[in-house]
Amino acid sequence: MGRTSDAREKILTAAQALIELRGYSALGVAEICKAAGVPKGSFYYFFESKEALALAVLDEHWEAQRSDWARILRDDAEPLSRLRRLFEETEAGLRAGQRSCGTVSGCMFGNLTLELSNQTEPIRERLQQIFDAQVEMVEKVIGEARERGEVTVGDTREAARSIVAQLEGQVLFAKLYNNTRHLDGLWGNCLALIAARRPDTAAVGS
Amino acid sequence: MGRTSDAREKILTAAQALIELRGYSALGVAEICKAAGVPKGSFYYFFESKEALALAVLDEHWEAQRSDWARILRDDAEPLSRLRRLFEETEAGLRAGQRSCGTVSGCMFGNLTLELSNQTEPIRERLQQIFDAQVEMVEKVIGEARERGEVTVGDTREAARSIVAQLEGQVLFAKLYNNTRHLDGLWGNCLALIAARRPDTAAVGS
Repeated sequence: MGRTSDAREKILTAAQALIELRGYSALGVAEICKAAGVPKGSFYYFFESKEALALAVLDEHWEAQRSDWARILRDDAEPLSRLRRLFEETEAGLRAGQRSCGTVSGCMFGNLTLELSNQTEPIRERLQQIFDAQVEMVEKVIGEARERGEVTVGDTREAARSIVAQLEGQVLFAKLYNNTRHLDGLWGNCLALIAARRPDTAAVGS
Repeated sequence: MGRTSDAREKILTAAQALIELRGYSALGVAEICKAAGVPKGSFYYFFESKEALALAVLDEHWEAQRSDWARILRDDAEPLSRLRRLFEETEAGLRAGQRSCGTVSGCMFGNLTLELSNQTEPIRERLQQIFDAQVEMVEKVIGEARERGEVTVGDTREAARSIVAQLEGQVLFAKLYNNTRHLDGLWGNCLALIAARRPDTAAVGS
């Protein structure tokens, strides 16, 4: 009674919203349970600790994002068009978030990396796996574009890592200035970082 | 007695070390005073609140970094050499930090941006001023390089912002993987982002 899987979902949803708003360290289990509308006993029925909850939140968030990225990056369009659409959808998601809650909350993975990666090894490892998976997905598309002679970059893994780094850095600025305009240059920068052989490269930074 | 400016310095030094290690939210005033070896009364003599302390820590950290950046960026070398040295010294600083404390602590400004910018407006504003100043310093050097015909970028402000974003993104990875190798590609990426007309651009991402 009460300890249904519904309660687990409520805790996860409340925790994700609170972590996006205020980070992890400042949160207490009591506050999460209050926001979720479940008794504190339920929490420890489903999660061994606050850290176990954070891992579950990361897994759930990544599962949703991974499936979005896979859909975008695996369709039939040309490789660079798919990569561009990944940026466009990421920007659209951040803009929608800002409209609904008033602030750019940024990237949960980047936020928790800077807040926690030096404090808990299980969270550091999970975040490494997530970013490795992101880089791998981007690398695959860059490799396809290179096979078509559209990009000249040598080390596709390093280029993919740089693109994800650029994304994280610009999302940091979008959050800091609460302004998604900082995402406008992402695609131009991405083309520069993979040395794309296309007319649009001329537009980089202009 | 005890409330000397020495106590203020001790509090600032302890707070900076603790914030780099564990972030801001997880810290308490009592813990900071214990690490500083000063009584709690001293804290409130010098700082109105934990937030006021965080602002003082940011100011002190930026004052030191700003003076380093100014020294590097204003010397007599060619503009792109100065910019390259800025990256090299940043990397050397992160490597030295890792050697002395075992982990890459990352960039305090980036860390606090992702942890706090949506939570306290005074800290958000201070961090905006700091990043604006960084971008302005980098932009000036890019402008000089453009006057010499060494870079082709159109919007120097946007390019400078992208370079600082790239730096923050790669420092995030260096922290996440506790590995400064992630900083190796910074200079090549910087050249790509400013569309430098130099032989080294061929090495980007290779």
